[in-house]
Amino acid sequence: MPEEPAAPPVRRTRLTPEREAELYEAVLAILREVGYEALTMDAVAARTRSSKATLYRQWKGKPELVASALRHTKPITVADIDTGTLRGDLLALTACADPEQMERDAALMRGLGHAVHCNPDLHRALRELLIEPEKAALRLLLDRAVARGEIPADTPAMEFVAHTVLGAFITRPLIEDRPADTAYLARFIDAVVLPALGC
Amino acid sequence: MPEEPAAPPVRRTRLTPEREAELYEAVLAILREVGYEALTMDAVAARTRSSKATLYRQWKGKPELVASALRHTKPITVADIDTGTLRGDLLALTACADPEQMERDAALMRGLGHAVHCNPDLHRALRELLIEPEKAALRLLLDRAVARGEIPADTPAMEFVAHTVLGAFITRPLIEDRPADTAYLARFIDAVVLPALGC
Repeated sequence: MPEEPAAPPVRRTRLTPEREAELYEAVLAILREVGYEALTMDAVAARTRSSKATLYRQWKGKPELVASALRHTKPITVADIDTGTLRGDLLALTACADPEQMERDAALMRGLGHAVHCNPDLHRALRELLIEPEKAALRLLLDRAVARGEIPADTPAMEFVAHTVLGAFITRPLIEDRPADTAYLARFIDAVVLPALGC
Repeated sequence: MPEEPAAPPVRRTRLTPEREAELYEAVLAILREVGYEALTMDAVAARTRSSKATLYRQWKGKPELVASALRHTKPITVADIDTGTLRGDLLALTACADPEQMERDAALMRGLGHAVHCNPDLHRALRELLIEPEKAALRLLLDRAVARGEIPADTPAMEFVAHTVLGAFITRPLIEDRPADTAYLARFIDAVVLPALGC
């Protein structure tokens, strides 16, 4: 697995990865149940049988805990992808689209949209811990395609790959009234993203 | 102005276009103030000094009134665009992007996302009165480009133009933390949409 670039410095953790994953799942479960505003560190501590001191030592606070939980429970992280071809990498980005899970998480995302608007700290944490690391990893993925000679370094569409792929996920329910699935996303990659990149 | 295809049959109206526009503005103002759930036909009637009978005669009910208001207060309607070139048409689609208005309407849209999820009637009205007519008008716009020989009839990206352009609007705030503006959208059209269409 390649190293994740531009990720925040790793906090020395006293938690095992399994325990951390368990905590993140609990945070998401509580988020789905009560929403961001009503989620408390007390509730997370109680649900996971951990101390609040542990939670605050590991994460700075609620916005950081929620952003980390969202990042680590995503079905795929861009930094984990390196298939050897641009098309392979882009298909891998979308291969785990699970319409059922996306339907379930749509409500979570709607609620978070509102919470982000009302909570600058959450906004900042999501940018720092989720969005910027993914953007940096995508830049590396595209740089590798340039290095392999698959796309010229100055291809104008390169700066918009994130917008185009994320847009494909978000807009299908709005336009076609059904969630994005793997087959649709693969067609989209081949019909839009690769031709825009000159491939 | 070309005729709007696939629009629902025009209801014979006793309202002048100015009066209709005034009503739609009032509906949107109330929507912004109280949200969809709390909006009532009584409040619309009172605010616009019209009778509820008029409202129900003109529109079937609250979902249809709200969907019509959203459609008719949009800064641009695809069916009104016909510049003579595909690039001109696509740029016209995005030329009226007003970051200030989009910021203001972001809250409205977040609220509507929730309301659509909870109200199948609103969902249906938005599809019938807003989304499907815009999709049909976009198909005509692209058909004209095919007829002019600008794009081959079987270009795979054609079926995704709506996803790609709408995605550009929606994803910029998420990815870049700023609203889509006209200059960004023009760059996106030239870097992604036209190359994907083989132009």
